[in-house]
Amino acid sequence: VAYALFYWPEIQGRGEFVRLALEYASAAYRDVSREDGGTEMARLLRDADTPAFAPPFLRADGHLIGQTANILLYLGRHHATLAPRDEAARLWLHQVQLTIADLVQEVHDTHHPVGSGLYYEDQRPEAVRRAADFRAHRLPKFFGWFERLLAAHGDDAWLLGDTPSYGDLSLFQIVAGLRYGFPRAMRRLERRHRHLHRLHDRVAALPSIAAYLDSPRRIAFNQDGIFRHYDELDDPG
Amino acid sequence: VAYALFYWPEIQGRGEFVRLALEYASAAYRDVSREDGGTEMARLLRDADTPAFAPPFLRADGHLIGQTANILLYLGRHHATLAPRDEAARLWLHQVQLTIADLVQEVHDTHHPVGSGLYYEDQRPEAVRRAADFRAHRLPKFFGWFERLLAAHGDDAWLLGDTPSYGDLSLFQIVAGLRYGFPRAMRRLERRHRHLHRLHDRVAALPSIAAYLDSPRRIAFNQDGIFRHYDELDDPG
Repeated sequence: VAYALFYWPEIQGRGEFVRLALEYASAAYRDVSREDGGTEMARLLRDADTPAFAPPFLRADGHLIGQTANILLYLGRHHATLAPRDEAARLWLHQVQLTIADLVQEVHDTHHPVGSGLYYEDQRPEAVRRAADFRAHRLPKFFGWFERLLAAHGDDAWLLGDTPSYGDLSLFQIVAGLRYGFPRAMRRLERRHRHLHRLHDRVAALPSIAAYLDSPRRIAFNQDGIFRHYDELDDPG
Repeated sequence: VAYALFYWPEIQGRGEFVRLALEYASAAYRDVSREDGGTEMARLLRDADTPAFAPPFLRADGHLIGQTANILLYLGRHHATLAPRDEAARLWLHQVQLTIADLVQEVHDTHHPVGSGLYYEDQRPEAVRRAADFRAHRLPKFFGWFERLLAAHGDDAWLLGDTPSYGDLSLFQIVAGLRYGFPRAMRRLERRHRHLHRLHDRVAALPSIAAYLDSPRRIAFNQDGIFRHYDELDDPG
């Protein structure tokens, strides 16, 4: 049975973490809103018995599953390529994914520090301050933590050791998105987090991921997503 | 075997969602930092093989488990009083908990919209703007969603229907914290979310929770936690 993914059709956003996992697992799925413009997603948000608070959500086996990390937890239980079988390792992987989700929220808030319903232009001074704090303190803290986890397994290892998991796919997306959004800050940080930056390149070279990135299914980064490029939010040029 | 909880010893914060679950399950646990001032917590954050990015984390059965919602997911698997056995219901409960975690982050950001390392006084104008957006848009959106979930089961039901779960305990904590932080906004919203407000009172009356709230183990709300009261961030008086 094919999965049905519900997410905004014009951005990578949080849905991209799910798309990468589905693609890596070679799972059959429909990206429903890209077919119908969002009609069924809106209906399910309004009428479902277990409505998501916000997209993305996945229809699987008759259930609706929301919250990005929760969707990945579910997919990890059903696809051996995405997560280990061992329960303690699965919980640890989920913990890392939840920390990635926290980082994603902080990235979002660099350009929307006052309100997600307001335009960027209406919160630009606050964004400049928040982004400076993010580049100086939060980004190095998150990256230092990821780097420590990766380095513990030696060179050319994955997040959990020998085998890729959905967590590696998500770390790829984090690096790719931040390179788009904060190219100068990312170049500044690159040498300090070489395992993380190498992981990005190694994930991009996995055959199923390389094929996906090269396909029309991969939406390009743009100024409506979570990762956005505003020059004044990056390191001074 | 007793659990060991690691969290900041002087605030409720995110640790309180875990404390409430441990108390409701009548689980044996040590609140370690309240005994040693945080020494072992600092050591584990620095030296553990699977370090948490931030407190709270729980030591259980030799493993360290971080991220509040992940800890509750784990406890729900080991205590029948906290979560249902059915896998789909457990995932749904976890999804709700992750949405509560998102709200908690937004509450935090009302008083720290620029950076968690800065004093409130150094980000007050930004906080006033963000809190106004929170009261006008975000809080009603989250509360409307919780209310819809509760109302679907009729009066005097719990989040999942007939039996309390850790999600109900967390919703209690949300209402209690927001009543402390935003008393005027909460009074304004009370009539629109009567199931949610009644749920708060019903959780507070559960015997094990009532005993906990009355004990010295319950730290009082204060101006160092997630839920803080700054008069200028609440509805105009």
